[in-house]
Amino acid sequence: DFERALGDVEPKFGAKATELKAFYRNGFVPYGDSFDLLMGNLERLVEQVRVSDRTPLMSVMLKGPNFSGKTAIAAKLAVDSGFPFVRMISADEMIGYGDSSKCQQIHKAFMDSYKSPLSIIFIDDIERIIDYVPIGPRFSNAVLQTLLILLKKVPPDDGRRLMVIGTTSCPELLEDLGLVSAFGVTLTVPLLEEPKDVIEVLKVAANMGEKEAKSIAKAIRDKPIGIKKLLMVAEMAKQGSEGSRVDVSIFMECLHTVGY
Amino acid sequence: DFERALGDVEPKFGAKATELKAFYRNGFVPYGDSFDLLMGNLERLVEQVRVSDRTPLMSVMLKGPNFSGKTAIAAKLAVDSGFPFVRMISADEMIGYGDSSKCQQIHKAFMDSYKSPLSIIFIDDIERIIDYVPIGPRFSNAVLQTLLILLKKVPPDDGRRLMVIGTTSCPELLEDLGLVSAFGVTLTVPLLEEPKDVIEVLKVAANMGEKEAKSIAKAIRDKPIGIKKLLMVAEMAKQGSEGSRVDVSIFMECLHTVGY
Amino acid sequence: DFERALGDVEPKFGAKATELKAFYRNGFVPYGDSFDLLMGNLERLVEQVRVSDRTPLMSVMLKGPNFSGKTAIAAKLAVDSGFPFVRMISADEMIGYGDSSKCQQIHKAFMDSYKSPLSIIFIDDIERIIDYVPIGPRFSNAVLQTLLILLKKVPPDDGRRLMVIGTTSCPELLEDLGLVSAFGVTLTVPLLEEPKDVIEVLKVAANMGEKEAKSIAKAIRDKPIGIKKLLMVAEMAKQGSEGSRVDVSIFMECLHTVGY
Amino acid sequence: DFERALGDVEPKFGAKATELKAFYRNGFVPYGDSFDLLMGNLERLVEQVRVSDRTPLMSVMLKGPNFSGKTAIAAKLAVDSGFPFVRMISADEMIGYGDSSKCQQIHKAFMDSYKSPLSIIFIDDIERIIDYVPIGPRFSNAVLQTLLILLKKVPPDDGRRLMVIGTTSCPELLEDLGLVSAFGVTLTVPLLEEPKDVIEVLKVAANMGEKEAKSIAKAIRDKPIGIKKLLMVAEMAKQGSEGSRVDVSIFMECLHTVGY
Amino acid sequence: DFERALGDVEPKFGAKATELKAFYRNGFVPYGDSFDLLMGNLERLVEQVRVSDRTPLMSVMLKGPNFSGKTAIAAKLAVDSGFPFVRMISADEMIGYGDSSKCQQIHKAFMDSYKSPLSIIFIDDIERIIDYVPIGPRFSNAVLQTLLILLKKVPPDDGRRLMVIGTTSCPELLEDLGLVSAFGVTLTVPLLEEPKDVIEVLKVAANMGEKEAKSIAKAIRDKPIGIKKLLMVAEMAKQGSEGSRVDVSIFMECLHTVGY
Amino acid sequence: DFERALGDVEPKFGAKATELKAFYRNGFVPYGDSFDLLMGNLERLVEQVRVSDRTPLMSVMLKGPNFSGKTAIAAKLAVDSGFPFVRMISADEMIGYGDSSKCQQIHKAFMDSYKSPLSIIFIDDIERIIDYVPIGPRFSNAVLQTLLILLKKVPPDDGRRLMVIGTTSCPELLEDLGLVSAFGVTLTVPLLEEPKDVIEVLKVAANMGEKEAKSIAKAIRDKPIGIKKLLMVAEMAKQGSEGSRVDVSIFMECLHTVGY
Ligand SMILES: Nc1ncnc2c1ncn2[C@@H]1O[C@H](COP(=O)(O)OP(=O)(O)OP(=O)(O)O)[C@@H](O)[C@H]1O
Ligand SMILES: Nc1ncnc2c1ncn2[C@@H]1O[C@H](COP(=O)(O)OP(=O)(O)OP(=O)(O)O)[C@@H](O)[C@H]1O
Ligand SMILES: Nc1ncnc2c1ncn2[C@@H]1O[C@H](COP(=O)(O)OP(=O)(O)OP(=O)(O)O)[C@@H](O)[C@H]1O
Ligand SMILES: Nc1ncnc2c1ncn2[C@@H]1O[C@H](COP(=O)(O)OP(=O)(O)OP(=O)(O)O)[C@@H](O)[C@H]1O
Ligand SMILES: Nc1ncnc2c1ncn2[C@@H]1O[C@H](COP(=O)(O)OP(=O)(O)OP(=O)(O)O)[C@@H](O)[C@H]1O
Ligand SMILES: Nc1ncnc2c1ncn2[C@@H]1O[C@H](COP(=O)(O)OP(=O)(O)OP(=O)(O)O)[C@@H](O)[C@H]1O
Ligand SMILES: [Mg+2]
Ligand SMILES: [Mg+2]
Ligand SMILES: [Mg+2]
Ligand SMILES: [Mg+2]
Ligand SMILES: [Mg+2]
Ligand SMILES: [Mg+2]
Repeated sequence: DFERALGDVEPKFGAKATELKAFYRNGFVPYGDSFDLLMGNLERLVEQVRVSDRTPLMSVMLKGPNFSGKTAIAAKLAVDSGFPFVRMISADEMIGYGDSSKCQQIHKAFMDSYKSPLSIIFIDDIERIIDYVPIGPRFSNAVLQTLLILLKKVPPDDGRRLMVIGTTSCPELLEDLGLVSAFGVTLTVPLLEEPKDVIEVLKVAANMGEKEAKSIAKAIRDKPIGIKKLLMVAEMAKQGSEGSRVDVSIFMECLHTVGY
Repeated sequence: DFERALGDVEPKFGAKATELKAFYRNGFVPYGDSFDLLMGNLERLVEQVRVSDRTPLMSVMLKGPNFSGKTAIAAKLAVDSGFPFVRMISADEMIGYGDSSKCQQIHKAFMDSYKSPLSIIFIDDIERIIDYVPIGPRFSNAVLQTLLILLKKVPPDDGRRLMVIGTTSCPELLEDLGLVSAFGVTLTVPLLEEPKDVIEVLKVAANMGEKEAKSIAKAIRDKPIGIKKLLMVAEMAKQGSEGSRVDVSIFMECLHTVGY
Repeated sequence: DFERALGDVEPKFGAKATELKAFYRNGFVPYGDSFDLLMGNLERLVEQVRVSDRTPLMSVMLKGPNFSGKTAIAAKLAVDSGFPFVRMISADEMIGYGDSSKCQQIHKAFMDSYKSPLSIIFIDDIERIIDYVPIGPRFSNAVLQTLLILLKKVPPDDGRRLMVIGTTSCPELLEDLGLVSAFGVTLTVPLLEEPKDVIEVLKVAANMGEKEAKSIAKAIRDKPIGIKKLLMVAEMAKQGSEGSRVDVSIFMECLHTVGY
Repeated sequence: DFERALGDVEPKFGAKATELKAFYRNGFVPYGDSFDLLMGNLERLVEQVRVSDRTPLMSVMLKGPNFSGKTAIAAKLAVDSGFPFVRMISADEMIGYGDSSKCQQIHKAFMDSYKSPLSIIFIDDIERIIDYVPIGPRFSNAVLQTLLILLKKVPPDDGRRLMVIGTTSCPELLEDLGLVSAFGVTLTVPLLEEPKDVIEVLKVAANMGEKEAKSIAKAIRDKPIGIKKLLMVAEMAKQGSEGSRVDVSIFMECLHTVGY
Repeated sequence: DFERALGDVEPKFGAKATELKAFYRNGFVPYGDSFDLLMGNLERLVEQVRVSDRTPLMSVMLKGPNFSGKTAIAAKLAVDSGFPFVRMISADEMIGYGDSSKCQQIHKAFMDSYKSPLSIIFIDDIERIIDYVPIGPRFSNAVLQTLLILLKKVPPDDGRRLMVIGTTSCPELLEDLGLVSAFGVTLTVPLLEEPKDVIEVLKVAANMGEKEAKSIAKAIRDKPIGIKKLLMVAEMAKQGSEGSRVDVSIFMECLHTVGY
Repeated sequence: DFERALGDVEPKFGAKATELKAFYRNGFVPYGDSFDLLMGNLERLVEQVRVSDRTPLMSVMLKGPNFSGKTAIAAKLAVDSGFPFVRMISADEMIGYGDSSKCQQIHKAFMDSYKSPLSIIFIDDIERIIDYVPIGPRFSNAVLQTLLILLKKVPPDDGRRLMVIGTTSCPELLEDLGLVSAFGVTLTVPLLEEPKDVIEVLKVAANMGEKEAKSIAKAIRDKPIGIKKLLMVAEMAKQGSEGSRVDVSIFMECLHTVGY
């Protein structure tokens, strides 16, 4: 009655696999060794969930600076898994909800996942889900506790398996809340460090010529940069530059405006 | 069905472009280099939103001291953009609202904007929107979180583009809340520093004669002043002076009364 | 339709000009130079609101120690202005109100004022309005934010002009909340320092003879005293003294009882 | 229509003059100089309220250690005043009330008092009225603000006069809340210090013989004691002693048990 | 109409005298001098309430470490008093009640007691009644204030007398809340210190033989122990020991398990 | 009427004995001396509850690091006891409940237990039950107080006996709340320290060969590891290794990923 169980699952809340593709609609560039290493690790964990019946629950925290590509990576992994149940929990669907509605929604997503043989729940920007702000600090303890409990709860039905993927850009702060160590596995999304990787990204995803890309890579060589930030500034610099070529000095100026 | 989408947008909340003109009804003087630089940058960002289909979301924080002209500049930019959807979120329309109504209103403004191909949302005095007070500090975490989420959310429909402009006079405090770095770009509104700029403003916007303007500019030359404060004190000084000419010593006295 | 707008204004809340006279029913003595200077400044500001169409909003904070005469001065100014709309916002009319009712009442008073061509809103003891207590400190942030917003809001209709007068006896504390600098102008109510001023007040307002007044003025010459406190102690001393003359030593003793 | 105003006043809340006598049913001993001085001062203030039409509002704080006789003194003063309106506000009538009911009740008591030509409101143990606890400290800010406002409010109708008497055993703590200086006058209830006063009290109010009283007075001569504590321990010691005479050593032991 | 007053009192809440016996169903051993001293003091206070018409209110705090026998002693005292009204206020009857229900229940118990000529109210583990936790510290201020007020309130009807007995194992913490000094008298429940007392208790209440009891008393001679803890560990040790005799080393091991 | 009492008990809440078996469905390996010692102690306590009629209440806290096997041990103990009433209180059944519902549920479980002659209540991860987070710290004081009260409450009916077993991985933090010392007995779940124990576990529960197990035991010999963590990493390492044998270096790498 596998079919039926799936039919039961009516996603009322959270993006499904197909919608997750939007998170990397500007492309997904396999830019170098550090990226390959991370992606390989993640894929192996997905595989473990798929095949090991001694792994009913697997949870992974993807941490990395702002604008480093966390959301895109997690979304791609979820889509590529092909799991029958994929659900994203994201803060913007719960704007203005009270704490208890949030807890209910999150609880519901996990309960639904328990009905599917293979599931992925993707919780993006976990600090936003718990209304975290470093001043105080303040956060929703109700939502935090709900997550802490669910991240430990093994799917009740035998044979059902669940993978939880979370992302955050402030792992040290969440650690104090016990929210990082509640995840079984923690992996880091790298910044672009190798000039060669920067060039690759600029060429493939920002349509730059070899020469422009190279001079920009050279200019920022000492400061690692997130892939999203790099693409954002490339776009700004195009606007500021005359003609179709991006000027390095304009690129650097734009970098400054975005607080780099 | 572009037309229809626009028709759908029924502004229930927030000033529209036409009403924003009131924020610079006392004139708008392009007073010098620092002003030109800022205005040029802002206009280029508006242009990027208009033309680049890789920029679905652009957010700019205008920071500057009290009485420096932030609101007028942001209002002018929004009006001049000619974007079909322009909406201002200002604290005085939400006086006495509970946190969740505020969140709803703000959310609604963003949702509405997603229906228009080109939109500007202008959030004035963002510290007031979140009920910020430095003692504690206290603020509405619910509203803060709503802003943090929406400032990151890409308009869901392909091709729709949104520019968010915020203003604040306490950027360091908001930075601690993550509210400044949530904006992609941050620009500073300058004070009047050059005597020549002060003279220009006094002549054009306060109807002063060359001579009066010059002596005032000379008297305050070492202390930069915000354009709004300059115009305010000029008006007070007129009242205190006999005849139509403004006396410098009276001007300085009035400056003192306003806590300069 | 100027007449009509005025007719619209139905004061439900707050004392009107006529009732404000009660705040100086024990007389109003123009006691000396420091008083004249303050009163002159205040009258000039009222005049500016009356005549300058570039001053739609003027706000003045009157700060001074307890028992120094703040309420009486503000009340007199409001009464003498002759403005068609005068409203006092005072804490005792809002006892036991919840925060949001308070915000509403205050908001309402300002909205009403926007309908009159010339208005004065007088907010007495602003620390009480916001439920301020230095331990914590605690205060109503909702009411504080409402005031901060309204103190900045220009009357929406062209040509309408509003003067806001606030009083406080703890300006340093309110400053931390941004509530003093939210006022455009700040002026200080002086204590009685000159023996000559003390004598004047005792003679005119406490019906003392020249000789009694003089000896008291001499006895307290080194410690400035608020006009309200001086009159209060004079009254107590009368009770304690035998016959109609007030004894200096009894006066000094009473001074002590009131914690001077 | 003086009669009618009085008729209007229907005391729903608070003990009336007759009931206040219970607070000194165990007698009231005029025990010595310090007592006479205090009582004289208090009576003079009552007299001022009765006769001076320039004293519409008089407020007195009686401070003193626990068990020193504050409540009895204030009750006696109120009863002896003969004022037509006397009302006690005491915490035990408001047990379990919410803050806003408390504020309402207190407000009501003052409003009622404004209808009588001469009134006394007696607020016993003001720290209990505001739910004060030194840890934190915590207290009801709503009730505190209500008191701060009412303690300053002059009876609105001309000629009506109100005396407010408060008692407290932690004046330093309340001072931080501004609650002591909100009273116009502050007076201190003394401890028994003179052996002669101790003897007087033991003889008159505890029915002791001269000899017993003398030896007890001698034993405690270096430590001032409150009149209520002295009488309480005398009673305990009677129980412990055999026969009708109280033994000094048993008296001292009992003193110890009560934490003296 | 003494009978009738008693009939009026319908105990809805709180254990009555008969039920209190359960608190010492395992026996009550008068184990030595320190115990006799305490019990004598307590009985004398009960006597005072019974006979002295100048003692309408007597309050006693029994403080002592955990497991020292506080509850049993207070229960015995109440039962043995033979007073017509005996009521226990204990936290487990108010689990999950809101603060205001708790206040009401407690208030009700006192109000009921005022109807009886002689009453005892026994408040066990007063820290639990006020939801006290040392972190913060946190506690219910509403319940605390209710207790502070009622502990001071003299029964309103003439001749009615009330004794309040409280117990606590954290007197220093409650002292900061003013909750210990609100009791008139404070007495300490001792630990077992004398080997002779330990032996007596083990023999009488734990059915041990002289020899076993002696060797245990010797083993713990340097560390005073509470009577409840001693009996508890004796029971555990019996389980661990083979045969009917308790082995000293097993006793010591069990002591360790209970964190001694 | 033993049968009937059992029939009365309708478990609405909490897992029953049969369901508790799921907590060790991956096997239960009696791995060595430290384990035997702990298990022996626990079994003796269960026995005491079964036979001693002087032990109506027994409470045991099982403390140990994360992933050390606490839940499995407590579940096994409860199942093996054969007691007619066994109930688990776990946080995931109360997700999103308000504080007072939680208190009610917990109270209900204890009340139900009082109806059975022999009961076990198993409270897993007690820090989650009280919503504990070390930042602040924050926790539900209402739930904490409910536990503190119930952990002390002797079953009211004579002869009924209750054992409470709690688990926690942050005993030092709970100690500050008085929640550890509220348990009568405290025992520690050990980590695997002896290579021989590690080998045993890997062979029996992870199906490893002698040789693999030995080399892994050797590699981690200096760092004790929890049994759950060991089994989890063994599973991950199997996935990463080619063929059926687990490579030590891959095992070590996986250990690193789980933050060991
Ligand atoms: N290899 C890659 N990994 C991640 N993102 C990539 C990659 N190649 C291209 N991209 C693009 O880079 C962007 C990554 O942005 P993303 O929103 O995932 O970053 P983020 O770290 O989640 O940012 P934020 O801190 O704002 O949440 C996307 O537009 C994605 O299409
Ligand atoms: N170049 C200019 N830039 C900005 N304002 C100008 C300029 N020229 C004239 N003005 C006038 O200066 C005033 C600027 O006031 P505005 O309210 O924008 O200042 P603000 O920084 O928002 O002040 P606040 O700190 O009170 O919010 C307006 O009256 C506007 O018409
Ligand atoms: N020149 C004067 N200025 C102010 N008050 C005067 C003057 N002459 C006489 N008075 C009298 O002095 C008293 C001033 O009291 P007022 O209540 O205004 O003081 P306040 O500073 O507001 O006191 P508080 O700190 O209690 O609010 C009034 O009774 C008023 O009639
Ligand atoms: N001269 C006196 N002044 C005050 N009390 C007196 C005097 N003579 C006798 N008494 C008796 O002393 C007792 C004073 O107790 P009272 O309750 O007034 O003290 P208190 O300071 O209010 O105590 P608490 O701190 O508990 O509120 C009363 O019983 C009163 O009858
Ligand atoms: N002389 C005695 N005094 C007190 N308790 C005694 C005495 N003799 C025997 N007992 C027994 O000792 C036990 C005392 O336990 P009790 O619950 O009163 O201690 P407690 O101090 O209230 O403990 P807790 O701190 O847990 O509240 C009871 O079982 C009682 O029967
Ligand atoms: N002797 C044993 N003791 C405990 N657990 C064992 C033992 N032998 C095998 N196991 C297995 O080890 C695992 C122990 O995991 P368990 O959930 O009890 O750990 P835990 O300390 O409660 O972890 P957490 O900190 O996540 O709550 C279970 O899968 C259980 O089947
Ligand atoms: Mg992201
Ligand atoms: Mg502005
Ligand atoms: Mg005043
Ligand atoms: Mg008193
Ligand atoms: Mg007890
Ligand atoms: Mg566990």
